[in-house]
Amino acid sequence: MKALVFKAPHQPIELEELPAPQEGENEVLVRIHAAALNHRDVWMTKGLYPGLKEGVIPGSDGAGISEGKAVILNPNVNWGTDPGYFGRNYTILGMPTNGTFAEYLSIQRDRLVEKPAHLSYEAAAALPLAGLTAYRVLFSKCRLRAGEKVLISGVGGGVALFACQFALAIGAEVYVTSGADWKIEKAIEMGAKGGANYRHDDWHKILHKASGGFQVIIDSAAGDGFGQLLSMCQPGARIGLYGGTRGNINKVSPHLIFWRQLEIYGSTMGNDQEFQEMVHFVSEHKIEPVIDSVFSLEEAALAYEKMNSGAQFGKIILKID
Amino acid sequence: MKALVFKAPHQPIELEELPAPQEGENEVLVRIHAAALNHRDVWMTKGLYPGLKEGVIPGSDGAGISEGKAVILNPNVNWGTDPGYFGRNYTILGMPTNGTFAEYLSIQRDRLVEKPAHLSYEAAAALPLAGLTAYRVLFSKCRLRAGEKVLISGVGGGVALFACQFALAIGAEVYVTSGADWKIEKAIEMGAKGGANYRHDDWHKILHKASGGFQVIIDSAAGDGFGQLLSMCQPGARIGLYGGTRGNINKVSPHLIFWRQLEIYGSTMGNDQEFQEMVHFVSEHKIEPVIDSVFSLEEAALAYEKMNSGAQFGKIILKID
Repeated sequence: MKALVFKAPHQPIELEELPAPQEGENEVLVRIHAAALNHRDVWMTKGLYPGLKEGVIPGSDGAGISEGKAVILNPNVNWGTDPGYFGRNYTILGMPTNGTFAEYLSIQRDRLVEKPAHLSYEAAAALPLAGLTAYRVLFSKCRLRAGEKVLISGVGGGVALFACQFALAIGAEVYVTSGADWKIEKAIEMGAKGGANYRHDDWHKILHKASGGFQVIIDSAAGDGFGQLLSMCQPGARIGLYGGTRGNINKVSPHLIFWRQLEIYGSTMGNDQEFQEMVHFVSEHKIEPVIDSVFSLEEAALAYEKMNSGAQFGKIILKID
Repeated sequence: MKALVFKAPHQPIELEELPAPQEGENEVLVRIHAAALNHRDVWMTKGLYPGLKEGVIPGSDGAGISEGKAVILNPNVNWGTDPGYFGRNYTILGMPTNGTFAEYLSIQRDRLVEKPAHLSYEAAAALPLAGLTAYRVLFSKCRLRAGEKVLISGVGGGVALFACQFALAIGAEVYVTSGADWKIEKAIEMGAKGGANYRHDDWHKILHKASGGFQVIIDSAAGDGFGQLLSMCQPGARIGLYGGTRGNINKVSPHLIFWRQLEIYGSTMGNDQEFQEMVHFVSEHKIEPVIDSVFSLEEAALAYEKMNSGAQFGKIILKID
């Protein structure tokens, strides 16, 4: 079979011809039809991901056919017994265990969930990691409800876009931020009420005034701007943090946190039940994942480059015919 | 009647002879037998409290007799309709409305709660503000359970000591920090399992190792040390922040927050139901508030000085015979 292989940090991912995998105990073979890239796939190539193992097939997101059924794959490996947080043996599909950037994958049978009928394989492959992360932070952690005002930072990324779509689907009032005006405009076309470019001066004051303050904020930047997000919160607001692309949090007023009774939730990925719920939610609300671009396995280098550039709006898909 | 009066910022609180108050609508007269100081009383004298009004009798905490019944006073004024956070008209007894540093106070009847039978007036007066703040942050926000490991920073302050006592009462494993070794020793005498002096190098590493990590942390310092508190958290830990004596939060790793699925709750004071629950909890568990010292109204300047010094261990009481 064709497969992409992680050779070593700072070396390109290589397309290789490998024997198809053997089914292990409780496992079943899946013919992957589409996969999707995540930031972690790029971080691996830079040596910036823990527990790297050479010779592994990367890829956390995938959809395909198994035993005649169209399925998408739950990327959790060994979440553990506590729904609140993953256990010590938790990993994500695609490192250190083989992932979805191949024609075939042998995987535990309980990782398979029926593909939503309204989605193509490409669209379904966009869902798992980003959809799960968005679902947990937005609903399980921040408990977003219809009619509430929610700010989603860095729209354009996979998680942020799903958060945007999920929030719109339940009838929340969505605002976004981005460093690119065109991404804000695209989000508004999708149904967001407004947005602001965080490269402009006073962006947070403008957004605060326009919205009247937020009940929920979903962020993956952290950094020096985190305090500005908090300054836009209504009393009792919930803030979900699922990443930290801008590094350490600084200059945050504790007074703002305790006086406004704010709640800050760290969140990443989600448990197996949340995965099931997320796929069901996508089916129920007929959500169509935003796809930035589709590449073949042969074009993997281009796909990785696009992911690395940060210029995408939506998921980057690998189509595996 | 005798009463302490706030004249203006940077002027001493004065003892005056005033007419006893008239009962307003739905109000009832309370003969105050004991009151307690809080940091806010000192901040007012420094002009560091919002909405200062000259000529007001300060004091948030009080216990006394009303209509023949021994009562303690709920210091919430107009919490509002949402149990999650106080509304716009919320204030705390003792500024801008007259408080407990006087022989008599006229107050809304629904502010009175029966004094726990096992407590003296002095001990009961220690409870309201600090006990309510500790109860909400520890139980309503951080959901502390028996057997869990909890770290309480800055032990010696009123809220921290109640948090310590409440946590011990339900069977949690309590650790403390302080800048003074003798306060840590006192907390250990009370039942705490261990503690560390945050002025020593590597205090957080030592405490992390001794405890194996915390499920709950209760803090009112914030500042540059907040990230060190987070570094001692077990996955899924809850952190309650009810103050910010060390100023802005800096150098906090977002990775720690999202990867360990931490929950950070801002909290201050508590709603009326929590006040009732707190007093009931104190009765049920026969908790005896820690009293640092007792002064008369005539000795108010000494009491304020002691509060300002930060040298106290427990509440500073004004006895009003």
